[in-house]
Amino acid sequence: MSASTAQQPSPQLFFQTINAHQKTEALKAAIELEVFTAISEGNTTTAQIAKRTGASEKGIRVLCDFLTIHGMLTKQGDQYGLTLDSATFLDKRSPAYLGGAVEFLCSPTLLEGTKRMTEAVRKGGTAMENEGTVSEENPVWVQFARSMGALMFLPSQLLPKLADPNADRKLKILDIAAGHGLFGIGFAKNNPQAEITAVDWKPVLEVAKENAEKAGVADRYSTIPGSAFDVDFGSGYDLVLLTNFLHHFDPPTNEKLLRKVHDALADGGRAVTLEFVPNEDRISPPDSASFSMQMLTGTPSGDAYTFAELERMFTNAGFSRSTIHPLPPTFQQVVISEK
Amino acid sequence: MSASTAQQPSPQLFFQTINAHQKTEALKAAIELEVFTAISEGNTTTAQIAKRTGASEKGIRVLCDFLTIHGMLTKQGDQYGLTLDSATFLDKRSPAYLGGAVEFLCSPTLLEGTKRMTEAVRKGGTAMENEGTVSEENPVWVQFARSMGALMFLPSQLLPKLADPNADRKLKILDIAAGHGLFGIGFAKNNPQAEITAVDWKPVLEVAKENAEKAGVADRYSTIPGSAFDVDFGSGYDLVLLTNFLHHFDPPTNEKLLRKVHDALADGGRAVTLEFVPNEDRISPPDSASFSMQMLTGTPSGDAYTFAELERMFTNAGFSRSTIHPLPPTFQQVVISEK
Repeated sequence: MSASTAQQPSPQLFFQTINAHQKTEALKAAIELEVFTAISEGNTTTAQIAKRTGASEKGIRVLCDFLTIHGMLTKQGDQYGLTLDSATFLDKRSPAYLGGAVEFLCSPTLLEGTKRMTEAVRKGGTAMENEGTVSEENPVWVQFARSMGALMFLPSQLLPKLADPNADRKLKILDIAAGHGLFGIGFAKNNPQAEITAVDWKPVLEVAKENAEKAGVADRYSTIPGSAFDVDFGSGYDLVLLTNFLHHFDPPTNEKLLRKVHDALADGGRAVTLEFVPNEDRISPPDSASFSMQMLTGTPSGDAYTFAELERMFTNAGFSRSTIHPLPPTFQQVVISEK
Repeated sequence: MSASTAQQPSPQLFFQTINAHQKTEALKAAIELEVFTAISEGNTTTAQIAKRTGASEKGIRVLCDFLTIHGMLTKQGDQYGLTLDSATFLDKRSPAYLGGAVEFLCSPTLLEGTKRMTEAVRKGGTAMENEGTVSEENPVWVQFARSMGALMFLPSQLLPKLADPNADRKLKILDIAAGHGLFGIGFAKNNPQAEITAVDWKPVLEVAKENAEKAGVADRYSTIPGSAFDVDFGSGYDLVLLTNFLHHFDPPTNEKLLRKVHDALADGGRAVTLEFVPNEDRISPPDSASFSMQMLTGTPSGDAYTFAELERMFTNAGFSRSTIHPLPPTFQQVVISEK
């Protein structure tokens, strides 16, 4: 585009944005039909992919072209291929397969929240009844625990390397809102002297216990069923993990919880928080900054907090010092707060 | 991003794509709440925009940051601003305001088609009952006529300049599936000797007639209510307009219609087709190539046709020659076919 046409207004972004929901549906359809897996198996033409997926040739042609346009496939002549990302995350046979995460990310609860965005903007929080996703024992968290493990597998391996790099001493670890349990389990695998206590709703903990069993760390894995706001944590922990949890609540609620976390830590203990942390401008980096929308539509008062906001919450709860650390290649950040 | 990290697989595109529906909802919410109009009026801080739109400050902050991240607003410090595109197309007071197009583009019918994409891919056409959007007298076309005029205003001014540049002789013009009527009306405004006959369902023609009245060309505007496949067009037309129509049907159906168009043209007459025309690779240019998805999910057998495919349909229907012309700055193409 020349400099002069770049100055002309264009309705292109309007069109692309209003039709963006097609991209969500196309990825869902391709996962459901196992299009990526079919291509990985060597079915690369429209006819071959259609045969393998039980779909029409025309439908596959339109879907695969659409996925190519939007960066999820390649096309050379009449042959479709996987990108590095789709081969890694969307082929069912890949150990890093993420397709299951659709069950949580496109669950009726999350979709309803997004659908009612106008109301949420008016109100300043989810338009859903009963506090949205953070309501008591909301079954969406069992769905989360069952389907989001794959997406958290990489960060759950990286986080222990950051917070327990030497892995050479006994560690008592509390994993708050453990979900799939992968973060606590990651610490247990990283350090054979680590002992994990996981807190979450009872049906969610069933998933975490299964995962601890599979990972061979069940003998160092215990659980406390219930709300993190209500249960007795015990005391003397070296580390308390707060992974993707604080964003669901407002600062006073978080501070109340963090005071309880502070009390449960041993002297010299640390809280390890994994979060979507936007910069002070709140518009960068884009993925972390965008996350506040998910919280607006899904929770009564959650948010994506800046480091300054998180630091203030920890300070108000009695912590002496918080530091922020990237966790590449993920776009999340780790805040380590010392008692 | 460095070369080495660019080689690592990342789940970022997966996340962005599965959450793309948030962008659709954010644009809808901002239009509904008149956020762009509010900013244009000088309300540039979260507090001011919230007051003007009757929404919460937190909701406005999250929405405006989200719109900024996705290119629809600017942000400097705590001040939001409009982009060139949003000032032109999303401020209600702008003559080129497109907000109304949401009523058609996000109508329950179009959304249902998109929602049932997996079924459509399996089947090779819309999963909706009764032929989807092309069913007889589907009320979505009244919605189309009422709400899509603004989006078509610019092309409806450009098309007559291309097909009737001298505007110096009497022209008898047939406007097939006229909808809002803007294309025929554009020709009538361009050339005081042009006489338009518009074909569409009766309730749709009411909208076209209103628009012809407003444009001051009602005395040269007549209508033929009914399906373009069934009604008698008459004969002796110099131009037949086929704007955004052929994409709804399969080639044999189009050829049948085009033979009828051929018969209705005077010697030396031309069919003027406005379409989304993908290149032979069907993945470029992206906006036109993506359009085939809308047809897959919304119609039984529609498609975005390449120029070679369109040319073949016109040739099979008896036309002697077809040529393709861009219509900048729009991303649509014009095919002119000579009798």
